[in-house]
Amino acid sequence: MITNKEKPLTPNLPAIKRLANEISKANVSRLVLVHGGGSFGHPIAEQYTIMDGYKNRSQIMGFSKTRQAMIALNKLVVDSLIQHNIPAVTVQPSSCIITKQGRIQLMEEKPLRKLLEMEFVPVLHGDAVLDSDKGFAILSGDQLVSSLAIKLNAERIIIGIDVDGLYASDPKTDSTAQLIQHVTLQELRKLHHKIEENKVTDVTGGMFGKMMELMPAVEKGIQAMIINAAKSDNVYKALKSEKVSGTVIKRGEEVA
Amino acid sequence: MITNKEKPLTPNLPAIKRLANEISKANVSRLVLVHGGGSFGHPIAEQYTIMDGYKNRSQIMGFSKTRQAMIALNKLVVDSLIQHNIPAVTVQPSSCIITKQGRIQLMEEKPLRKLLEMEFVPVLHGDAVLDSDKGFAILSGDQLVSSLAIKLNAERIIIGIDVDGLYASDPKTDSTAQLIQHVTLQELRKLHHKIEENKVTDVTGGMFGKMMELMPAVEKGIQAMIINAAKSDNVYKALKSEKVSGTVIKRGEEVA
Repeated sequence: MITNKEKPLTPNLPAIKRLANEISKANVSRLVLVHGGGSFGHPIAEQYTIMDGYKNRSQIMGFSKTRQAMIALNKLVVDSLIQHNIPAVTVQPSSCIITKQGRIQLMEEKPLRKLLEMEFVPVLHGDAVLDSDKGFAILSGDQLVSSLAIKLNAERIIIGIDVDGLYASDPKTDSTAQLIQHVTLQELRKLHHKIEENKVTDVTGGMFGKMMELMPAVEKGIQAMIINAAKSDNVYKALKSEKVSGTVIKRGEEVA
Repeated sequence: MITNKEKPLTPNLPAIKRLANEISKANVSRLVLVHGGGSFGHPIAEQYTIMDGYKNRSQIMGFSKTRQAMIALNKLVVDSLIQHNIPAVTVQPSSCIITKQGRIQLMEEKPLRKLLEMEFVPVLHGDAVLDSDKGFAILSGDQLVSSLAIKLNAERIIIGIDVDGLYASDPKTDSTAQLIQHVTLQELRKLHHKIEENKVTDVTGGMFGKMMELMPAVEKGIQAMIINAAKSDNVYKALKSEKVSGTVIKRGEEVA
């Protein structure tokens, strides 16, 4: 969404500006923002296989470059937020988080909590982090969102992507794809089981991995909503709790 | 040194590039780099009196802007280091440190230690941080250097500035000022006492505050050296333990 995914290291500055404006207009309190890597982090991380962990010295410069690319993208985001009068402050995930096998093992939360207490808007991002087993790993924005929502006892999670939500098939290749407006954890688990059993690929267009990451937060009773942030005012409306088309993930009755 | 101090937000790119080249050429292991704020952090921090702590809401955007200015300067530094093939990785101090009355109270060191273990070159900087008493504070690069040297059991500290070292008077205003080549902690304490007693200003041109910050590390037996980084090859020579004109601070006999 905030980068041009076809071109490495190319921001989508109009989208960044528009979203900063929507967030500013909504003016909600106790907001934490997390963005992904788009065409900044991913191509370099893939080139140096950072997600596989440390294998040899040739990856070392690749890790430095991945980190630096994420700083570059984050700087554009935070510059724009500040221009829209949002007291945005970067919290660099790799400076305060260590993963173990790619999962958050340790996080120093005090600076983040103190920022929220003082009514700043902390901004985090997917990042290349140190991993206690693998040397290094990629920490996705999705894992970070879910983990932060639990730690901070969030009211809700809003995920802005470039499609309307979870579809029964991939909307980018299937024009008859049906949007799933509500899904429960039980339904997601069944879908997961089906994918695992049949060794089928993720027919939803990569959305299922995102859903899986959000499940632990939803299990704690935090509602998660996936919306199309590429459509004007969707982020604004979601922040203001106005009606927006998308997919809502709810815990459902069985664990209530 | 790495910024034009007369002009806000103006980097000294030739100096950054030259220093990156000297550091690359020296190729030392277990190196941690720390830079200051120069004309990036200081003018904004002063404008919003960030160093006085939180007083009112009008400072909030100033804190965001100070943080963002330090990210901008750090990005230029790390970009240049990476261009010189140094596996530099930013560790954002404000993401892992909380101060209390301006002094480091808490620091999550694991990411930094792990980076060193993997032979990266961590890069830190003076920063606007959260403070448990004052809301926020300025953490100087000097305090950070001293604290990190103690935590990491450093072999030595090299401080690169734009004069040759500690002078008996200010070399920028007194052309007959004498460079002090060696100074012990006892001598520094006497000088401190004299300054406190007579309420005289720091005649050494602001160098004394820097010295005071380094004292705790020197007390632990870590040698600190102040050199003129504006002179070509001084940083290279100091890293290679070659002879460089400057001021060496030693613990001295009395605490040996």
